[in-house]
Amino acid sequence: MSLLVVGSIAFDSIRTPYGEVVEILGGSATFFSITASWFTPVSVVAVVGEDFGDEHFRVFGERSIDTTGVERLPGRTFRWKGEYKGDMNQAFTLDTQLNVFENFVPKIPAAYLGTEFLFLGNIMPTLQLEVRRMFPNLRASALDTMNLWIKTMPEDLAKVLATVEILLVNENEARMLSGQNNLKKAAQFIQKAGPRVVVIKRGEHGATLFGPESIFTVPAFPLDSVYDPTGAGDTFAGGFMGHLARTGDLSDANLRRSAVYGSVMGSFAVEEFGVGRLMRLTPEEIESRFREIKNLTHFDA
Amino acid sequence: MSLLVVGSIAFDSIRTPYGEVVEILGGSATFFSITASWFTPVSVVAVVGEDFGDEHFRVFGERSIDTTGVERLPGRTFRWKGEYKGDMNQAFTLDTQLNVFENFVPKIPAAYLGTEFLFLGNIMPTLQLEVRRMFPNLRASALDTMNLWIKTMPEDLAKVLATVEILLVNENEARMLSGQNNLKKAAQFIQKAGPRVVVIKRGEHGATLFGPESIFTVPAFPLDSVYDPTGAGDTFAGGFMGHLARTGDLSDANLRRSAVYGSVMGSFAVEEFGVGRLMRLTPEEIESRFREIKNLTHFDA
Repeated sequence: MSLLVVGSIAFDSIRTPYGEVVEILGGSATFFSITASWFTPVSVVAVVGEDFGDEHFRVFGERSIDTTGVERLPGRTFRWKGEYKGDMNQAFTLDTQLNVFENFVPKIPAAYLGTEFLFLGNIMPTLQLEVRRMFPNLRASALDTMNLWIKTMPEDLAKVLATVEILLVNENEARMLSGQNNLKKAAQFIQKAGPRVVVIKRGEHGATLFGPESIFTVPAFPLDSVYDPTGAGDTFAGGFMGHLARTGDLSDANLRRSAVYGSVMGSFAVEEFGVGRLMRLTPEEIESRFREIKNLTHFDA
Repeated sequence: MSLLVVGSIAFDSIRTPYGEVVEILGGSATFFSITASWFTPVSVVAVVGEDFGDEHFRVFGERSIDTTGVERLPGRTFRWKGEYKGDMNQAFTLDTQLNVFENFVPKIPAAYLGTEFLFLGNIMPTLQLEVRRMFPNLRASALDTMNLWIKTMPEDLAKVLATVEILLVNENEARMLSGQNNLKKAAQFIQKAGPRVVVIKRGEHGATLFGPESIFTVPAFPLDSVYDPTGAGDTFAGGFMGHLARTGDLSDANLRRSAVYGSVMGSFAVEEFGVGRLMRLTPEEIESRFREIKNLTHFDA
């Protein structure tokens, strides 16, 4: 089934203990769509500037991603500059230039209106809500957000939260959103506010899925080297929603498998700077790592 | 099979967001032995002061723990005072009074020499090595240590590390001991230094077992409330070694089950201050939570 993402496309400049890159293709919609394209047809709604050229659109094209909804406006593309130190669990933002993203108004091409799965990437909650309302007949919608919106627009965020089936956030966001330190209580609080599925992403510790029927944990795949965590969360979401949309199956068992695919794809994302590794994947590599996570977690009861 | 622990017995004073307790029974050997007693016969080597009364010995007696090796010396018992804040992942030490523990020289009763499994709790590495050498014919020995010894006695620690089959440490200790930020590399580094099994405890994120054949992750059981993390690591070790000793089975499959029992027991430890919850357990509760962790991690591949 078809999957639509609304989010950001950016040029990222990143420094980690392993090296440095300048203005490479990034952004939540980029990581999400390239990842999900390994599972199901994907369309993107985002905005870029005049500096976003054919060579950049071609990256999406290579993965057959529909970019009809990517608007190209006068001005420069969103830029983010960040650094990771030591244990790589935290990004230090050095510079943010919103540029054309500052006044982003998502425009949905008519051809997208039949989409069955929707991912509302981390943009202003009022915009997320507008987009959400254009799709009354979805199979499922999922939301990402960030501390900025939790702090500055809690009421708007609450409105959009009430309309989605799935929330994907990291630990700190879950705590801040719920006012609960305990993650189980945080998830229960959020479930009462709307989404019946809450996925709490825990970086190198994996993720916990709080579903309507059960709780499920998936570890991060143990890697020899984590080169660049940028985009890992959006990549997790891309694998999670990609598998959900591919199967159209919202059962407890399949939500679990979706979380495992999220972890699988996140593990590829961090092996290189940018989306390079995600572009070069094969379905066999994805399935192989899925089985490795099975082996990593299996025990005989 | 029989299991011996050498470690500390202490009176802990603890403050958490949930309350405060003063001078309750604690220490690594206490948490470890009470936990392991649910699996297998346990003996303890430790030292206490004159303030350690019959009522304290009775706690061990209730669990049929052999305390012949607990020496009672003139002076006061080891005291630790600490506080947990916010997310409860870190203990802030407010006061440490080593008292009789300062000059602890482990003395092994002759009746203990036939023990098959040995846990060297977190004491000075030179003492750990002396004890280790008294048991040439063990089925398996395991070691705990801490940042203090990694910093101040690295050579002595290396000597004892070379003699054990299993190391149980937390993430930061693994990183410090190996000089590797990446946990997989840290574990591989440590495995080359001696122990073929490295268990990295990750608090609320569970644990990762690096064995000779495979890597295994077990989550922490999601609790509604964590009242007091004190002793959770020693309790994990008690469940892990307790199940290993009960079965005498060092296979990959059974090391995995042992890690699950470690997580199970750790989850009980943190539900109350001190050892109260661990004293009140039933085998049914333990098995029930073991199955719950199975359900928490299971997915169909």
